[in-house]
Amino acid sequence: MTHTDDHRTLPRTDRADLEAILDAGFLCHLGVMVDGAPVVVPTVYGRDARWLYVHGTVAGRSLAADPGAAVCVTVTHVDGLVLARSVFEHGVNYRSAMVHGVPRVLTDEDEKLEGLRRLTEHATPGQWTYARQPNRKELAATTLLALSLEEASVQIRSGAPDDGASADAELGLWAGTLPLNGRWGAPTADPLLPVGITAPAHIVARAGTRQG
Amino acid sequence: MTHTDDHRTLPRTDRADLEAILDAGFLCHLGVMVDGAPVVVPTVYGRDARWLYVHGTVAGRSLAADPGAAVCVTVTHVDGLVLARSVFEHGVNYRSAMVHGVPRVLTDEDEKLEGLRRLTEHATPGQWTYARQPNRKELAATTLLALSLEEASVQIRSGAPDDGASADAELGLWAGTLPLNGRWGAPTADPLLPVGITAPAHIVARAGTRQG
Repeated sequence: MTHTDDHRTLPRTDRADLEAILDAGFLCHLGVMVDGAPVVVPTVYGRDARWLYVHGTVAGRSLAADPGAAVCVTVTHVDGLVLARSVFEHGVNYRSAMVHGVPRVLTDEDEKLEGLRRLTEHATPGQWTYARQPNRKELAATTLLALSLEEASVQIRSGAPDDGASADAELGLWAGTLPLNGRWGAPTADPLLPVGITAPAHIVARAGTRQG
Repeated sequence: MTHTDDHRTLPRTDRADLEAILDAGFLCHLGVMVDGAPVVVPTVYGRDARWLYVHGTVAGRSLAADPGAAVCVTVTHVDGLVLARSVFEHGVNYRSAMVHGVPRVLTDEDEKLEGLRRLTEHATPGQWTYARQPNRKELAATTLLALSLEEASVQIRSGAPDDGASADAELGLWAGTLPLNGRWGAPTADPLLPVGITAPAHIVARAGTRQG
């Protein structure tokens, strides 16, 4: 496992932040090495107390080709823009978690199924028992990576701009934040769905709620 | 520059998709190599017709330490969850652009200023002329990477689940999509702002509009 100054085992206070950031989202950016260069792809994840489960089949291609290689998984929620008096102090309010290390590529069928359950329930609570669960063929066609949550770091920026007490405060310019909110819309039925099949409660209940 | 099967110069039809995806966002995930392992960090970007400008000072640390090394910049917009009859066909509706190659670290003051202008205006149109622009000291303290838009790829998934005409359609389960929408909120003034300074029109006008 690779260590740098930025990579450290989390103190207990950061652990709660890490879990909160991971639990608030479902899409991560997975960084892997391909032919000596970094490649960053969006994919979905879930977790338990110890492991981050990451879907490793991205755009039809398995990312399990390079066993033993380190990866980096980053989850970021954008809370708004920081609009300061000076361009230099502009920024973004965000919460970001980074998990890194050498992942295990899951091969045990039971563990793979449990990982997929975590991942499915993470994105859509209630969906694992509602939908048809994976059969052995589908399970074999799925690449699932498990990355220890031990090696992780958290970055959080919140609140007002930092130049409110600087010389720039005398410029008389407005400064503050512009919040950004993610929200689930109303479920849209598949056009091929026969009439009379209504969306289940665990989907309907989500419409209008906050995401992120 | 590194080439793989996934890395190709874009045909003209993809170019419009690439620009639309880049223009719909302001936050990217930048993948770099650190001590032989990939590290993925969120940062902000802007662009012109030829270059992607990426802020290379992340969490107080410059990412320009490794000249000549390839990077990967990925921008992803999540449009919703794809809720199929089977767990296997579940997925995400999204638009993602990946730009990669060896970036130039900008050193010329004029080019750096122009890159920062693009980046600032990309995140908040109207802000470059409203806020105080960077002075020479601030410019020197900013790392800005320029990455050619030539080496890029686009992934888009939209619409209903794919199992509407499969054997699973007979399960009688609901299937469809759950849309996810990003929206700007009302501007929040810095608590240190003197009374009587109101938010400028280019900020106020954004509240309630769609993001992503």
